[in-house]
Amino acid sequence: MNFEIVDYKNHNVILLDQRKLPVEETYVTLSHVNDVAEAIRNMTVRGAPAIGVTAAMGLALAAYQSQAKSRVEFNSEILSVSDMLFATRPTAVNLVWALKKMLNLLETHSDTSVEQLKVLFENKAIAIKLQDIADNKAMGQHGQNLLKDGNCILTHCNAGALATAGFGTALGVVYAAVENGKRISVYADETRPVLQGARLTAWELQKNNIPVTVICDNMAASLMAKNKIDKVIVGADRIAANGDTANKIGTYAVAIMAHHHKIPFYVAAPLSTIDISTPNGKMIPIEERASLEVQQLGSTQLTPKDVSVYNPAFDVTPHELITAIITERGIIKPPFAAGLGKLFRD
Amino acid sequence: MNFEIVDYKNHNVILLDQRKLPVEETYVTLSHVNDVAEAIRNMTVRGAPAIGVTAAMGLALAAYQSQAKSRVEFNSEILSVSDMLFATRPTAVNLVWALKKMLNLLETHSDTSVEQLKVLFENKAIAIKLQDIADNKAMGQHGQNLLKDGNCILTHCNAGALATAGFGTALGVVYAAVENGKRISVYADETRPVLQGARLTAWELQKNNIPVTVICDNMAASLMAKNKIDKVIVGADRIAANGDTANKIGTYAVAIMAHHHKIPFYVAAPLSTIDISTPNGKMIPIEERASLEVQQLGSTQLTPKDVSVYNPAFDVTPHELITAIITERGIIKPPFAAGLGKLFRD
Repeated sequence: MNFEIVDYKNHNVILLDQRKLPVEETYVTLSHVNDVAEAIRNMTVRGAPAIGVTAAMGLALAAYQSQAKSRVEFNSEILSVSDMLFATRPTAVNLVWALKKMLNLLETHSDTSVEQLKVLFENKAIAIKLQDIADNKAMGQHGQNLLKDGNCILTHCNAGALATAGFGTALGVVYAAVENGKRISVYADETRPVLQGARLTAWELQKNNIPVTVICDNMAASLMAKNKIDKVIVGADRIAANGDTANKIGTYAVAIMAHHHKIPFYVAAPLSTIDISTPNGKMIPIEERASLEVQQLGSTQLTPKDVSVYNPAFDVTPHELITAIITERGIIKPPFAAGLGKLFRD
Repeated sequence: MNFEIVDYKNHNVILLDQRKLPVEETYVTLSHVNDVAEAIRNMTVRGAPAIGVTAAMGLALAAYQSQAKSRVEFNSEILSVSDMLFATRPTAVNLVWALKKMLNLLETHSDTSVEQLKVLFENKAIAIKLQDIADNKAMGQHGQNLLKDGNCILTHCNAGALATAGFGTALGVVYAAVENGKRISVYADETRPVLQGARLTAWELQKNNIPVTVICDNMAASLMAKNKIDKVIVGADRIAANGDTANKIGTYAVAIMAHHHKIPFYVAAPLSTIDISTPNGKMIPIEERASLEVQQLGSTQLTPKDVSVYNPAFDVTPHELITAIITERGIIKPPFAAGLGKLFRD
């Protein structure tokens, strides 16, 4: 992988601008936490694990630039910035998870000076990034046991290196299978309206020399009917305690189609995506985004200008449609409530 | 309805240019059958019944312009032009049906002069157009009995006035229900890659003051899970003798989703779309279109430039997933083989 998705260097957050892919590979250097928040909102960076890492780095940046004269002042400032980052996108729980990890420093280091804490914040953000990559690699190793040589995988959206600090979740499983000598090919749903599959999944699989074919979201069922799909693997933005999984809009449809064709449907996600405090999918907040995302594309008007649009960014796949959840600690099979519960107790 | 989809005037074929909708409402005037064939291929006109009518008018144009000195010469010329029109798009059977109706004149009027036949060809093409509109209105009347006041309908692609000579098939059912005083609202799948839902269905429903909300194809399941869809109605490009239905790519996925949520799934199509000589959906030829349709949109590059794409224009919904087929002769319920067979024997 010859690209960095999110980095923290010289007290700046550096992001690969995913809005410009696959046409341009450009990076933005952000020197203020407000710009980091805006980059999460406008999807310069996206993918649940990646926005978790980015938010942590944004908070590190705010800590580094703090003018606070006391710990009370510093803590108050950090909590306020954290709330702002928290509100950027509501569905992915990794954002909450990463910010909590950062805020934890305020408690575990209650006697530490502001200057020392600034260093701890920056180090912690970098550690969260490195841990995400390590977790993805472990997840890949577990998950690749589910894939056979010659398998053709369908994936939705982008749950690859670009959705994480590196290596990826769903695509991490594919990369690990290939590293283990298996020949794997991938169908990528283009994933309207933001086209993460067409733009990002296709781009990174090509970079990694893995055969990839892009399809429109509405073509997957047709491939399944022709026995062209062996397994489905997707990522997740939030997994509830019972296994219900919020992921990019359209994931639920893919799960129904896979179920109809008796094709295994796997979710690959780190523990940071599992929200054990949310009992089921009905409790997961679903972000709705601007109508313009559906109405226009580039300079092209797709719909009548004033037409009503429904644009939820995520949907919830009920746990009954999920064959297994692949995590960095192993593969969890149904019943998920028991399996996920044990994971968090251990 | 204040627009004509396809017309034959002053020995020209006039088409509403559906590629330009919803941004521009422009018409093209075609004075040669080769231009008519190209307009079918490049989807200036689309929709199974509409391309049937257009092909008939193209053949009428060729007849009118014929320089043939004898009936032998005329017949040979007409058969050759018909073969060319026949090959423009392979899936919709209405094209075959309409051309056969036209060619029938050669047999039923074997003693008629070339000059007289030219008039008969032109009149027949216009009659096919008027019959299509009348059939759609009859279909709408039958179909609207299935809809209740307040129903919210999901449709895929465009099976409206724009897909026919007028009034529409699936949307004709909606129009008829509204004419009967029922309040009906519609969710329109945008229908990638050509976006007939976003561009055409939204446009014509707005023109007819029927509430319409555009969604991406991958959002329908999410609406169904929220009980926002009462019924699904789609059109068809070819219905096999057992009820298996080829329609715009993505229809099969919608049918699976409807089945999963126990939502009625209706196909609305005239008898000209039913191909009683094709025993089942596996025998229906499925057109694959250019990769560029998926790779680019307007001036925007969506995928890596050289990425592999699979772009079938249609899929087949097996008859088991269809609740009923709405025709101009009434509503056909399963078993479809018996019901459709009876329709053609009668």
